[in-house]
Amino acid sequence: MQTEQLIQQIRTKKSFLCIGLDVDIKKIPNHLLKETDPIFEFNKAIIDATHHLAVAYKPNIAFYEAFGIKGWEALKKTINYINENYPELFTIADAKRGDIGNTSTMYAKAFFEDMEFDSVTIAPYMGKDSVEPFLAFKDKHTILLALTSNEGAFDFQTLKVGEVPLYQKVLETSKSYKNSENLMYVVGATKAEYLKEIRQIVPESFLLVPGVGAQGGSLEDVCKYGMTENIGLLINSSRGIIYASNGEDFADKAKEKALEMQQQMASFL
Amino acid sequence: MQTEQLIQQIRTKKSFLCIGLDVDIKKIPNHLLKETDPIFEFNKAIIDATHHLAVAYKPNIAFYEAFGIKGWEALKKTINYINENYPELFTIADAKRGDIGNTSTMYAKAFFEDMEFDSVTIAPYMGKDSVEPFLAFKDKHTILLALTSNEGAFDFQTLKVGEVPLYQKVLETSKSYKNSENLMYVVGATKAEYLKEIRQIVPESFLLVPGVGAQGGSLEDVCKYGMTENIGLLINSSRGIIYASNGEDFADKAKEKALEMQQQMASFL
Repeated sequence: MQTEQLIQQIRTKKSFLCIGLDVDIKKIPNHLLKETDPIFEFNKAIIDATHHLAVAYKPNIAFYEAFGIKGWEALKKTINYINENYPELFTIADAKRGDIGNTSTMYAKAFFEDMEFDSVTIAPYMGKDSVEPFLAFKDKHTILLALTSNEGAFDFQTLKVGEVPLYQKVLETSKSYKNSENLMYVVGATKAEYLKEIRQIVPESFLLVPGVGAQGGSLEDVCKYGMTENIGLLINSSRGIIYASNGEDFADKAKEKALEMQQQMASFL
Repeated sequence: MQTEQLIQQIRTKKSFLCIGLDVDIKKIPNHLLKETDPIFEFNKAIIDATHHLAVAYKPNIAFYEAFGIKGWEALKKTINYINENYPELFTIADAKRGDIGNTSTMYAKAFFEDMEFDSVTIAPYMGKDSVEPFLAFKDKHTILLALTSNEGAFDFQTLKVGEVPLYQKVLETSKSYKNSENLMYVVGATKAEYLKEIRQIVPESFLLVPGVGAQGGSLEDVCKYGMTENIGLLINSSRGIIYASNGEDFADKAKEKALEMQQQMASFL
């Protein structure tokens, strides 16, 4: 998907909501467990109920891998279901991969070809030749970890390298990578005050922002410091939406929560 | 597996060879393509031919993921085959994962429980709460990326944070993580001269060393600067062994190459 299509979708829906599909079989409603593929049925119901309120869906790959082949099948069915029924949606494989050249190409094929995701999250530690193989795919996006929402972000990401913190160096250096126009970045909402400086380095790039809600980040602060003319934000919410209820009404309750967020977002557009 | 068992195995076999199973269906011998699961059949033949010369096997997870569900099945059959037939072997899921708390736990379950690997490679960028969930598994090992063998390692890993390069900070900081006795580290053989300083920070930890051979690293230098009383090294070779021939004799040729490396290693013990 081209970035322009994502921007158009945001304007049409008045939403920059990304719904995180961190689907844990222990947390989904009991009545789904009798289905052949409970995880897929859960995702399908959530997507059907919320697709008009969100612009992106982000399966957290770990949750699928933890269920082995069955999880992998559920993931594949989920991405296929989105692409077939709601091709306007932007899809993110939250995989946080990163390896050298030919191995990165294999990961890129896994997420961009075997499963047709629009984007994948990537860790920057291994540098240029671990990121560029992903950037080589046309109309696909590489979402590089810059400043994450967790406590451990302070272990290395915020340490000064020379004059600037590591995460700023990551932003700056990545701009020189080949096909860097395909880059987006992960910036945690729990560190919204950092967005001002981040926007000086990457004034137009899309930022995928986790941590609003459950982790304590503020939507208002993120918009205040991070929004661009073309919005440039995808705000992720996972548990707050998909686990709003664990009864038979789970999809309706997810829709209510998504609507709440969409309405808040509309007020900032 | 306990570290002592790995050390014992190294002493018995006079080898600290790890064979990387970076199995690309385009590179395996043609005659295997008629099998139901060519990748597994390839791995099985390689393992059967070399298990007495190597102490560890390291499937590169990207190569399996790129084949989707079939790749995942081949991976699972491979780890099960090793565990059932050669339980003395140390197994490494070269996955380079890393995510926050509950997500890391899901990845750990994927590799330590759904598939019973002894260890997994992890990227350090997200810090403590992305690594500790892996360390919590008893008798399992977390192999943290420190200094990788690729060119991109110079993008961030070798940048100075305060007085020391980032990779040294990663080594130092990780020692304070809970259950840090379960840590090992990736250090590329192409940067063997760095091993002297690395050994000052982690004098006893096992190091997984890629980059000998194809990437130009020297076994002699790695042993000179990196070996400890308990050896403390796992030297990985992938393509040089598994693709020694692409004819029907591929397993025999792999055995010859593995034997060459084992004999070189024996001379350093």
